[in-house]
Amino acid sequence: MKTDPAWLPDQAFRAIGTRRVVVCGGDGPVVRTVVDEVTRACARYGGRVWHGTAGSPDADGADLLLVLTDLDCLPGEAAAVRAEIAPGQPLGKEGYALARPAGATVVVADGPAGLLYGLFHVARLGEAAFDGWRPLEVHRPASARRMLDHWDNIDVHPVMGQVERGYAGGSIFWRAGEPRDLHRVREYGRLLAAIGVNAVAVNNVNVHATEARLLTDRLGDVAAIADVLRPFGIRTHLSVSFASPMVLGGLPTADPLDPRVREWWSSAVADVYATIPDFGGFVVKADSEGQPGPFGYGRTHADGANALAAALSDHGGVVHWRAFVYNHRQDWRDRTTDRARAAYDHFAPLDGQFADNVILQVKYGPIDFQTREPVSPVIAAMPSTSVAVELQVTQEYTGQQRHVCYLGPLWASILRFRPWGPDGRAVASVAGDGGGLVAVSNVGDDPFWTGHPLAQANLYAFGRLAWDPFLDPLDVLDEWISLTFAPCPSVLRSALHEIMDSSWQVYESYTAPLGVGFMVNPGSHYGPGVDGYEYTPWGTYHFADRDGVGVDRTRASGTGYTGQYPAPWRDVYESVASCPDELLLFFHHVPYSHVLRSGLPLIQHIYDTHFDGVTKVVEMRRRWAEIADFVNAARHARVAQLLDEQVRCAQEWRDQINAYFFRKSGIPDARGRHIH
Amino acid sequence: MKTDPAWLPDQAFRAIGTRRVVVCGGDGPVVRTVVDEVTRACARYGGRVWHGTAGSPDADGADLLLVLTDLDCLPGEAAAVRAEIAPGQPLGKEGYALARPAGATVVVADGPAGLLYGLFHVARLGEAAFDGWRPLEVHRPASARRMLDHWDNIDVHPVMGQVERGYAGGSIFWRAGEPRDLHRVREYGRLLAAIGVNAVAVNNVNVHATEARLLTDRLGDVAAIADVLRPFGIRTHLSVSFASPMVLGGLPTADPLDPRVREWWSSAVADVYATIPDFGGFVVKADSEGQPGPFGYGRTHADGANALAAALSDHGGVVHWRAFVYNHRQDWRDRTTDRARAAYDHFAPLDGQFADNVILQVKYGPIDFQTREPVSPVIAAMPSTSVAVELQVTQEYTGQQRHVCYLGPLWASILRFRPWGPDGRAVASVAGDGGGLVAVSNVGDDPFWTGHPLAQANLYAFGRLAWDPFLDPLDVLDEWISLTFAPCPSVLRSALHEIMDSSWQVYESYTAPLGVGFMVNPGSHYGPGVDGYEYTPWGTYHFADRDGVGVDRTRASGTGYTGQYPAPWRDVYESVASCPDELLLFFHHVPYSHVLRSGLPLIQHIYDTHFDGVTKVVEMRRRWAEIADFVNAARHARVAQLLDEQVRCAQEWRDQINAYFFRKSGIPDARGRHIH
Repeated sequence: MKTDPAWLPDQAFRAIGTRRVVVCGGDGPVVRTVVDEVTRACARYGGRVWHGTAGSPDADGADLLLVLTDLDCLPGEAAAVRAEIAPGQPLGKEGYALARPAGATVVVADGPAGLLYGLFHVARLGEAAFDGWRPLEVHRPASARRMLDHWDNIDVHPVMGQVERGYAGGSIFWRAGEPRDLHRVREYGRLLAAIGVNAVAVNNVNVHATEARLLTDRLGDVAAIADVLRPFGIRTHLSVSFASPMVLGGLPTADPLDPRVREWWSSAVADVYATIPDFGGFVVKADSEGQPGPFGYGRTHADGANALAAALSDHGGVVHWRAFVYNHRQDWRDRTTDRARAAYDHFAPLDGQFADNVILQVKYGPIDFQTREPVSPVIAAMPSTSVAVELQVTQEYTGQQRHVCYLGPLWASILRFRPWGPDGRAVASVAGDGGGLVAVSNVGDDPFWTGHPLAQANLYAFGRLAWDPFLDPLDVLDEWISLTFAPCPSVLRSALHEIMDSSWQVYESYTAPLGVGFMVNPGSHYGPGVDGYEYTPWGTYHFADRDGVGVDRTRASGTGYTGQYPAPWRDVYESVASCPDELLLFFHHVPYSHVLRSGLPLIQHIYDTHFDGVTKVVEMRRRWAEIADFVNAARHARVAQLLDEQVRCAQEWRDQINAYFFRKSGIPDARGRHIH
Repeated sequence: MKTDPAWLPDQAFRAIGTRRVVVCGGDGPVVRTVVDEVTRACARYGGRVWHGTAGSPDADGADLLLVLTDLDCLPGEAAAVRAEIAPGQPLGKEGYALARPAGATVVVADGPAGLLYGLFHVARLGEAAFDGWRPLEVHRPASARRMLDHWDNIDVHPVMGQVERGYAGGSIFWRAGEPRDLHRVREYGRLLAAIGVNAVAVNNVNVHATEARLLTDRLGDVAAIADVLRPFGIRTHLSVSFASPMVLGGLPTADPLDPRVREWWSSAVADVYATIPDFGGFVVKADSEGQPGPFGYGRTHADGANALAAALSDHGGVVHWRAFVYNHRQDWRDRTTDRARAAYDHFAPLDGQFADNVILQVKYGPIDFQTREPVSPVIAAMPSTSVAVELQVTQEYTGQQRHVCYLGPLWASILRFRPWGPDGRAVASVAGDGGGLVAVSNVGDDPFWTGHPLAQANLYAFGRLAWDPFLDPLDVLDEWISLTFAPCPSVLRSALHEIMDSSWQVYESYTAPLGVGFMVNPGSHYGPGVDGYEYTPWGTYHFADRDGVGVDRTRASGTGYTGQYPAPWRDVYESVASCPDELLLFFHHVPYSHVLRSGLPLIQHIYDTHFDGVTKVVEMRRRWAEIADFVNAARHARVAQLLDEQVRCAQEWRDQINAYFFRKSGIPDARGRHIH
């Protein structure tokens, strides 16, 4: 089967391809990408292209599209647009301005990347970009770093496979120990450019033996990928092992303060930049789930991160240092230890100690990419540190690309959250000032890229929200639908919205209730396992007994985690009365009789949401069946098959969760439905 | 580290090695083994050996040991012993007689295997074999077939590894796709000969692609093993795929009634016997846990087994056809389906339809090698079928060779069980008449053979109980201690008995209570996972709720499984009042307040046994520490380390089980101990 074009089918370039297009932006790989795009579109749809100063468009004919950085080469309309932009507000190297003064749509940028993003913006607008007069729009990314981490292994890992937590086939980079033909990577780069992603890490944060060598004798494999991604404005990053000086360098230590270690990193990094001049930097998972780190040498994480940062700083590289550090050998009997506290406890005291080119990469929630978690308190705790917020596009805990679960609304809720209250800054602003947004990619060698064809929307939404976190996630979904299913009949559009708009909430409704998290099968993390993690060392418990359920994280009687938030949240979360219901069981242990804001007792809420969730999934499947005529047959078949699995699995969740809580509570369903 | 000699240290042959030994038994590989054994022993300890008619012992000097089959070669003392054996009771090809008329210990056999077993019997007796006068003893095996199945894979299986459910390192037969050097197999054969095992299957009953080929193009690997085992009186068997005619033969079907399929089996079997003339036969797991079988063609298991049996019958081979057939995709919501019923429901109606050389291989219990199960009702349901009882020496569910768990008492209780009541035959008698005893081996390439050095006792006990199921399992343990730790000081002997005698009951006390089974972690089957299988398709549930626990398998209100037993057990098990407490939760769902014969409520029994079990394991560890001076240092260290793990794991069991039932029941411990 041919690879699915995702959100860049030929149709997406129809509006551009019928125009006379002038690209006036010098040269270089990114500009060549712009020229190639418009040239292909015009060849297909009958438009014409001029590039640079070679010739000039004829005066008559269709609308002009001017895409330019170099104002001297075609001053007329473009100069006017450029002049409108306030001089104190530079576009920056990735920003662009769009306007349509009269008869010509003009994209102005100050550099090749802006040109590229401007072109894809015109593609998103389609005919609307050429429709009458348009006022000046200026677009700049909210964050300078918009990154995808691939948890791809070079060797097939005996447990985790080719891609750790991958649900879309093999890796697009690696197969069974070797680099792959990179034609898919080129297509991937193009898709990412269209959504504004500008950084990719090409290997798993759990760095195994073979993967460690990407830093040294297998650097050529990384350079080949970087060459393919560079024309799409994407810098390539590498996950490295903190123990590299020992594993690769033969040193007796990886102590970050040891001069030999620092020298080794400097030398290794110099070699990297000699090969890949625009190399992005490192991603490091240290002292986490078995990975080595500075604790082994009695050093802090600032010591560890700064050692690598020092090596990178002369070359413009950064260290993405993950804050996902916790005790994964916890004793489940010990109710005083709280995994949710761990990242804050480890990192908040280090604020101010990190080098400028260290980016602390913080998962959005304090636990681990659950369907519902409060925002991590670390984000508000590091004012003197660059913080990147890490999301998970790959659906580890949200249906593993077998369930429809559009994550845009989840991410929007995180990015818009204001840790200091309604008058304070939003999470998006903290990330924008510092490290930006990072996400674990959901892409593999599956023909649909993401296993579930509708999971493409999550990748799309990540890029778009990383560029502008205040976009309405349902508008972003609509963009994705318009491009992917172009030309999209309204019957299809409305069905897709019905299926996808609330799919995250639907998924939540039939899985773990009210923020309690981790009721999945151990290991795979797919499907229900209510007690699956209850007596394990992983620190992920719900404490259900015959009387109630939930984790007391209050200062008054629990683990004190609420105290890691600034006001007002430290108080909002502290009290059952003010804690939002959707996070109730994350913060409080309450009896099954506890009455929620809906007026329903907790136990009845659990029963109702689980019955309703399944009903909604069945309805999703019915809606999808109705639109078979409007969707490509292969895509329709794949989604239909997966919806069958989603119905089955949702029923399983419903029945296990309801049976579990009925057996514990002994309270029957008030509506008399059968509980097993 | 050198391979541990297990129960055959040099010391075990001291008594023999100091004698003048005459071996008078013709020739052949097994007789050569006997000669080799005594020659080695005499070389070490100063004795002398005569073989056959070559020379004759001098008249004076130490005691004579005569080991002979050929009465003509040395008639004197031997003829007298032979004459004592009743003419109507032949020794058979494996039996032997022992006596010590005057100044000479005489072993008489009618064939080489009997000679071999008689020699090892003298080794077990040690000096006692030469101590004054001994009356005539006649020894014959209770079962003609005493077999070990190896669940060893040729290729390392991605999930199950080199040995499925193996806890002793790699396979002694295979490594990473290739046969191994067979010196360990030779040692293994010798150990097995010493305990009377006479059949070995060399590959896993789950037959994967490479393993299937042992039947055809990799037959040479099997022949090499057979050559090594033959001198120890052991016939080699093979697990085969029912789909072999398709997988290996390229046929479009494996339908057992298709003439092409029958022809293919005939031809394959003829090739096997041309290569391995004493080949034992096949082991088949069909229509079970994903393995192919006759159901795929609408045929019965009798049809399936008989097709293979027909091919083997001309050559003296047998088919071990496993009765482990059940629906492993059960719906946990469906309480009418009962996995315990499955083997009986499938096979009882087929009694009388199996060919003579089919042996139906039945697991001892109806579920799957649990620490406590009732005896399988299939054993009493097949009077016209040869039935082999299958035990599991490898400790899949009994501590995985990290816990001390001497299984002799468990097996003795099964073998002595009388399905038709106290006046009927015992299980051992049914097996003895038919297919004998089979067990899954616990041996790997670990230097101690079995991972846990004390787990050697289980392998020893299997062989000895297969030979004589009415031996006292604690006497067998004492035999093993005497040989393995020879010369064994009494302080060591008593410590080992204290640690091992009740270790099965101790293991039971801290794991799943009262026969309820399956509270283990899914997949690995190690450590507690109370709800691990509760909502799975595997048919292994305990149905605990806030009021009670257990599976109602009565005819009156449950699955009707009790009706598969003949009287009196069908009635004994049916009633809570008469059902033995140790199987209570296997047969009945009872409230936590149910009072056991001990006078304790069920919930208190659960708490007490789990606290007590840990106390006993701690005591085991203390006892082991005390005897450090009497045990080889490497062996002591290994056991000490494993006892630490056993303490840890027993605590984990105690705390999870107690916490689980406390959270469900809300009933506190009457003795006020802390429950998490």
